[in-house]
Amino acid sequence: MRLGFTQTLCYFLLFFGVYMQTITSKNNSVVKLVQKLNSSAKTRKKELMFVVEGLRLVNDAMASNATFECFMCSESFMEKNHKFINDIDDITCKKYVLTDKLFSEITDTETPQGVLAIVKFLDKMIAFDKIISSGKFLALENIQDPGNLGTIFRTCEAMGINGIIMTHNCCDVYSPKVVRSTMGSVFRLPFYFVENICEFLDLHKELTSYASVVHGNSVSIKDVEFVTPCVMVIGNEGNGIINSTMDRCNFKVTIPMMGRNESLNASVAASVLMWEMMK
Amino acid sequence: MRLGFTQTLCYFLLFFGVYMQTITSKNNSVVKLVQKLNSSAKTRKKELMFVVEGLRLVNDAMASNATFECFMCSESFMEKNHKFINDIDDITCKKYVLTDKLFSEITDTETPQGVLAIVKFLDKMIAFDKIISSGKFLALENIQDPGNLGTIFRTCEAMGINGIIMTHNCCDVYSPKVVRSTMGSVFRLPFYFVENICEFLDLHKELTSYASVVHGNSVSIKDVEFVTPCVMVIGNEGNGIINSTMDRCNFKVTIPMMGRNESLNASVAASVLMWEMMK
Repeated sequence: MRLGFTQTLCYFLLFFGVYMQTITSKNNSVVKLVQKLNSSAKTRKKELMFVVEGLRLVNDAMASNATFECFMCSESFMEKNHKFINDIDDITCKKYVLTDKLFSEITDTETPQGVLAIVKFLDKMIAFDKIISSGKFLALENIQDPGNLGTIFRTCEAMGINGIIMTHNCCDVYSPKVVRSTMGSVFRLPFYFVENICEFLDLHKELTSYASVVHGNSVSIKDVEFVTPCVMVIGNEGNGIINSTMDRCNFKVTIPMMGRNESLNASVAASVLMWEMMK
Repeated sequence: MRLGFTQTLCYFLLFFGVYMQTITSKNNSVVKLVQKLNSSAKTRKKELMFVVEGLRLVNDAMASNATFECFMCSESFMEKNHKFINDIDDITCKKYVLTDKLFSEITDTETPQGVLAIVKFLDKMIAFDKIISSGKFLALENIQDPGNLGTIFRTCEAMGINGIIMTHNCCDVYSPKVVRSTMGSVFRLPFYFVENICEFLDLHKELTSYASVVHGNSVSIKDVEFVTPCVMVIGNEGNGIINSTMDRCNFKVTIPMMGRNESLNASVAASVLMWEMMK
């Protein structure tokens, strides 16, 4: 069913006074952009935009004043969410309504709610300059698993960490899986990218730095008195922190462990480290 | 390439004195069993067996004296792992070698190492009777995410938890994803199933029980002095602990949180709770 201008107008009159353009074709350029942004980190980096899907995340994006490129929903969603569609009217961006079938074809989720937005990148270096002298931070080096990265964001917010510094070689924070796993924290927690943690630490000598290590010459986090401002450095899941970063850190700290399984999942380890750091 | 008896014998003579039957057909009953055990919790429950894949996990199964139903590897694996194949000879079970192509067709992993085993179920109630008077335990109620369940097992072992009690409505601990996420802890950590946590607590009044809750009338885990023996009860990811279990617990404890995102991933929350419990 192709909806023409008359029918679009019909939605306009019937429902909420919000003008939404209808899209019925897979070949529409915005539809194609959504698919490319969902599947390709390269496209995200080129366009400096990413896709936010689901009611909760779109709401989180709105609440944090993210810059919307466009908003998109399915016909069913539009019919069932008058209030939300009215709220969306306040956002300055193009708005589209898709047939349910088309929406389900472009979505990244298995059971789509029928709502998504294209949003501009969020990393903000400027915010850091203001908070760096008084906060506690996490520095992530080469974290590779999207679930880990998203969970670390979520935990950071819940534990009151002030922000995240991350290397460019971490997995893409704007991938659909990471964004979902953050549960919206990606919109609220300040974060920014650096080429390497070493340089960041050299630029911010006011931060006391703690390198988290699994073995070796280190202090149990049970015995560490964390100083403010400070940063906890967490390395790659398999290989840990690179040597040059390790050498630059003020302290090496470790989580004492038992059993044969002497390692923790990266997001679990980060959580315990943050917990002790924020106590 | 179909390997006949002569070629099998050739492996026998050339490599290691271990007799391994060759399988070249997808229709072989053992091959079909592996696939069914990987894909169906129902089949696992009927056969009381599950599949263990990868060198590390098969080694963990051997080290923990799990009961092997059969062992299976690819031709490439066999040619590159003489010592391991010799070790496997000590295990009393049928041993099979598959063409690389067939192995890659039945595997549950994206980049198979070429080695798996079918192993008998591991849950053991008897072990608990010996340790319950002196240990610290986790009781899991209706945990639904395989990654969470596996990570909780892994963390339990690393933190020195003595065992896990879990309800039958948790996701299947013997699914390939859970087994992988445990990093082998499933073989070393005592665990057993109960119909509900309430009955378990009624049977073990010697255990002080702590219900972990997100909100409500509860004590911050920072302020709890954990008593031994004890059990920490963790509920479903979305709905928490059911009321009847909650009422039966001695204390309600919570992890104090900040930010708008007032919840933690279930495995992260479990980790922080265990960390405080084991300090």
